[in-house]
Amino acid sequence: MSLAIISPNRDITPWLEIFRKEAADIPLEIYPDIKHPKKVTAAMVWQHPKGSLQSLPNLRLICSMGAGVDHILGDDTIPEDIPITRIVDSRLTFSMTNYVVMGVLDFHRQIRRYQADKKERKWDMSNPEIPVSVGVLGVGELGGDVLDKLSYMGMEVYGYGNSPKSDFRHPYYYGNQLEEFLSKCNVLVCLLPLTQSTDGFLNLDLFRKCTKGTYLINVARGKHLVEEDLITALEEGILSGAMLDVFRQEPLPEDHPFWQQERLTITPHIASITNPDAAAPQIIENFWNLEKGHPLINQIDRKKGY
Amino acid sequence: MSLAIISPNRDITPWLEIFRKEAADIPLEIYPDIKHPKKVTAAMVWQHPKGSLQSLPNLRLICSMGAGVDHILGDDTIPEDIPITRIVDSRLTFSMTNYVVMGVLDFHRQIRRYQADKKERKWDMSNPEIPVSVGVLGVGELGGDVLDKLSYMGMEVYGYGNSPKSDFRHPYYYGNQLEEFLSKCNVLVCLLPLTQSTDGFLNLDLFRKCTKGTYLINVARGKHLVEEDLITALEEGILSGAMLDVFRQEPLPEDHPFWQQERLTITPHIASITNPDAAAPQIIENFWNLEKGHPLINQIDRKKGY
Repeated sequence: MSLAIISPNRDITPWLEIFRKEAADIPLEIYPDIKHPKKVTAAMVWQHPKGSLQSLPNLRLICSMGAGVDHILGDDTIPEDIPITRIVDSRLTFSMTNYVVMGVLDFHRQIRRYQADKKERKWDMSNPEIPVSVGVLGVGELGGDVLDKLSYMGMEVYGYGNSPKSDFRHPYYYGNQLEEFLSKCNVLVCLLPLTQSTDGFLNLDLFRKCTKGTYLINVARGKHLVEEDLITALEEGILSGAMLDVFRQEPLPEDHPFWQQERLTITPHIASITNPDAAAPQIIENFWNLEKGHPLINQIDRKKGY
Repeated sequence: MSLAIISPNRDITPWLEIFRKEAADIPLEIYPDIKHPKKVTAAMVWQHPKGSLQSLPNLRLICSMGAGVDHILGDDTIPEDIPITRIVDSRLTFSMTNYVVMGVLDFHRQIRRYQADKKERKWDMSNPEIPVSVGVLGVGELGGDVLDKLSYMGMEVYGYGNSPKSDFRHPYYYGNQLEEFLSKCNVLVCLLPLTQSTDGFLNLDLFRKCTKGTYLINVARGKHLVEEDLITALEEGILSGAMLDVFRQEPLPEDHPFWQQERLTITPHIASITNPDAAAPQIIENFWNLEKGHPLINQIDRKKGY
């Protein structure tokens, strides 16, 4: 038995430090220098090269090193019967929610307008608030928390998901009620999981169904958004602005039109960054759960994709 | 009996509309054209000219048209035995809290830095969060709500007030515990009432006691802040930035140094604006309370000043 770490684009030093301290008894293999591939029973991965798990014939568990698993599910060389787990971290939720609330408030209280007024030494007290009601696409761990926090702050909120929920704690729409949901809100937050059916979900067709002047916040995955459609929607005034943390290609290419779009606020995929201190113990726990035949924690449903 | 409206610098049309609809039986007098000064029993005022109430010999009630009463208490020609009421409006609280939370989050998540990075097409993922703990000066209606909301969001919060409180729901400091309070936080929110003892409370001496790099948010009154001391504190790196909604002179004069201070976010006294729909009924109610000898609502304690 051993655990392989496959995360070629990330500095794994802080992870190794925790394993040294907390799990010195787990033999580690670090990609690409895996010395005994047959001994690897579990792999912890983040944006692994497609197909790289095929060299591990005895793999029985794949742990995402973050909250998302789309990077794993997007690799069709992975056998369907291997369980996949993700990280659930209240700190991830804290960061994600704060980022979204910041986006909602910056729009609601028009802080960009006041920054522009400051430059021109302009004192304009008119219409200090844009009334907002916030719709959240995706009501899992993260989306649910965003709704809780905004609702506690006194905001009108709506959730939208894939499937019916009989006892959800906020107004909720699902499936073909999308249009009704969109008509209720003027801030739209995307926290969907990335699956085949949500790739390109944020497109011009959807934007046209939004309340005019809706403000978009995408903190899920770059692939949820058809990027050229957003530019059209901004230029045609269908949307009034957007805050984006994720992009189809990251880092955002130097010649990407988003850099110079005035009505876009962009950040470099920092809304919520996995903290190894919280994440590594979950992977260690699941490594031993696997060895002992105990139930895994934070296992995803591969059919649903999250 | 009649009610005088003394608010020369504000458009009172929306107020008059509500009185016409909801209280057509209250005779109104509008400053400066008060025809029967002897008949005036109550006055609703906002930034009245000092001394202007002296012409009303039978005045028995003064209603502030907003949450603050410093504009009334600052006029020493007003007899000490006339009761003063203020507006309490959950909408005022909603707006004030949202503004403060926006300020806290914009600092915590460094949105200004990302706006600058965007201009330079720079993708920098390092240190995406400044850890914050928030101290609120003044824990009344507004300060208490700010503490509740930030605490619910998972932030570390501290309150500071004038007098001891045995059962306050958040960590609380008072009186000469100021230094200890300041050492706990790196975001400082001023929501103090303006009284003789809080005029100039935010000065260089206090800033020097703050955690280095503290971020200041002043949403109370311009006179709480010694403005030249803030500039010194910013230039010496004692404070890392500030968000100000209020100023000693409003509108902020064109040649004021704040306009060009990079580390200042300023807004034109819009954090929380009285909504006549919520405020006028409270004044109407108190007018009739006075006439009928019933207890007043939202009466302030003149000795405390709030």
